[in-house]
Amino acid sequence: MELEDVSAPVCCEPLSGPVMDQDEAADLARVFKALADPVRLRLLNLIASAQGGEACVCDLTGPFDVSAPTISHHLKILRQAGLIEGERRGTWVYYRVIPERLTRLSGLFALPDLSGA
Amino acid sequence: MELEDVSAPVCCEPLSGPVMDQDEAADLARVFKALADPVRLRLLNLIASAQGGEACVCDLTGPFDVSAPTISHHLKILRQAGLIEGERRGTWVYYRVIPERLTRLSGLFALPDLSGA
Repeated sequence: MELEDVSAPVCCEPLSGPVMDQDEAADLARVFKALADPVRLRLLNLIASAQGGEACVCDLTGPFDVSAPTISHHLKILRQAGLIEGERRGTWVYYRVIPERLTRLSGLFALPDLSGA
Repeated sequence: MELEDVSAPVCCEPLSGPVMDQDEAADLARVFKALADPVRLRLLNLIASAQGGEACVCDLTGPFDVSAPTISHHLKILRQAGLIEGERRGTWVYYRVIPERLTRLSGLFALPDLSGA
């Protein structure tokens, strides 16, 4: 699966807010496609919960029953969806989540009106 | 696409929290697969933002360029993912979001540690 880079802002209204236009829906659908895989969710969990906010790719293959190239492929999909970014330092690439994107997704599902009613 | 009913609790830790187990990752991946479609996202937006918290299926086909059976199919996938529930009253089915599930997804992406650091 190849994803376009959708790291341009997919911004900012909750599902319970104004009408979502077709472009925003298409962008968000691509992000959710990136999330619709158990290995990618577990990778994102490992990266998001890593000490110091970043995880070495060298620590991301061990927990999984799949090959290193497969993990690289999943990391690429998460990166192209704008959920993580990677930085090479020496031998290894270090990944961290992009907090703005996760916060955006958190806000998407926020339901202030219903829970406060 | 047929989804199992995953409305059993998929509960409650953020991505930045403890290690996600394989079952939870698989359940969540199914929910994100349900969300990975622009028409379903727009349907969910229409339902979540409807006056009174619920939307008549009779109001959900007009905004889309697809047939009523296709809309029904998408609504079924959202229902099977535990995101919405429907209630028949007279001629029509009325849909509302399941707030606990949306709140759960909101919490999944919450990043208290990073934003507060």
